[in-house]
Amino acid sequence: MSQEAVQDYYPGDIAVCYGCGKSNRHGHQIKTYWEGDETVSRFQPQPYHTAFPGYVYGGLIASLIDCHGTGTAASANFRDTGMLPSSESLERYVTVSLHVDYVAPTPINFVLELRGRVKESKEHKMVISVTVSADGKETARGEVVALKMPENFLSKK
Amino acid sequence: MSQEAVQDYYPGDIAVCYGCGKSNRHGHQIKTYWEGDETVSRFQPQPYHTAFPGYVYGGLIASLIDCHGTGTAASANFRDTGMLPSSESLERYVTVSLHVDYVAPTPINFVLELRGRVKESKEHKMVISVTVSADGKETARGEVVALKMPENFLSKK
Repeated sequence: MSQEAVQDYYPGDIAVCYGCGKSNRHGHQIKTYWEGDETVSRFQPQPYHTAFPGYVYGGLIASLIDCHGTGTAASANFRDTGMLPSSESLERYVTVSLHVDYVAPTPINFVLELRGRVKESKEHKMVISVTVSADGKETARGEVVALKMPENFLSKK
Repeated sequence: MSQEAVQDYYPGDIAVCYGCGKSNRHGHQIKTYWEGDETVSRFQPQPYHTAFPGYVYGGLIASLIDCHGTGTAASANFRDTGMLPSSESLERYVTVSLHVDYVAPTPINFVLELRGRVKESKEHKMVISVTVSADGKETARGEVVALKMPENFLSKK
């Protein structure tokens, strides 16, 4: 799993998430990998992803935390169940709540590094904590509460 | 103030926020107005703002809540202090924390309606609660903790 991102296993026809879907050509297409006990995503903001001149807008940071959180949950589910990663075995997670603390302004000229950890794991629920850093300095912390997506989630909505 | 959005008073040279800056041609440019005791913004998602086919991604919802929250704080500050709204009198607010509960999937084919209320107001801090609805149904609830931006905030960073 170390060489492939969990998002690579999201089935292409529904991998349309603006934050992390490989099939959304307008979107951010973030990729979540394991590095030891942590998951990591990296993202280079565009020059127009500003809050104020030179600094990243908070909505982008929230979006990245959200998708890195659900990606971490899906990755951890693979790891914990011992399943071989594949599109068929993938169980997706959806966010039910998202919390972000903005601890410092985030400069826009650096690759953002997101690091995720599983804080809590129950049968259908995971709580993922995420940090965001730019140029080695932590600028935001987040928490994602994610639920395993029911099989009929998309057809029920 | 009812006919002009608070974001219209953000000075043009720093109004580059991707969520609500009138000078960011790539961004969402949301506008926050009063309707009675509530503030309202409306936003039509683009077809590619998807989470899953047909539904809005959570990062957009978080972004809109964030900007509607800080816009509401700035609007309420005008109202509470009795200042005449102008770019010169405007005091901006920055988000220090953002919380979103996703209570139902948000369909993408409707104009989203955000409604904000001041939940708490102190000298330099406001807590704004925001609801998001699509087609008359509430799909998300958020809370923004916003601090008044120090005068030297931009030069200090």
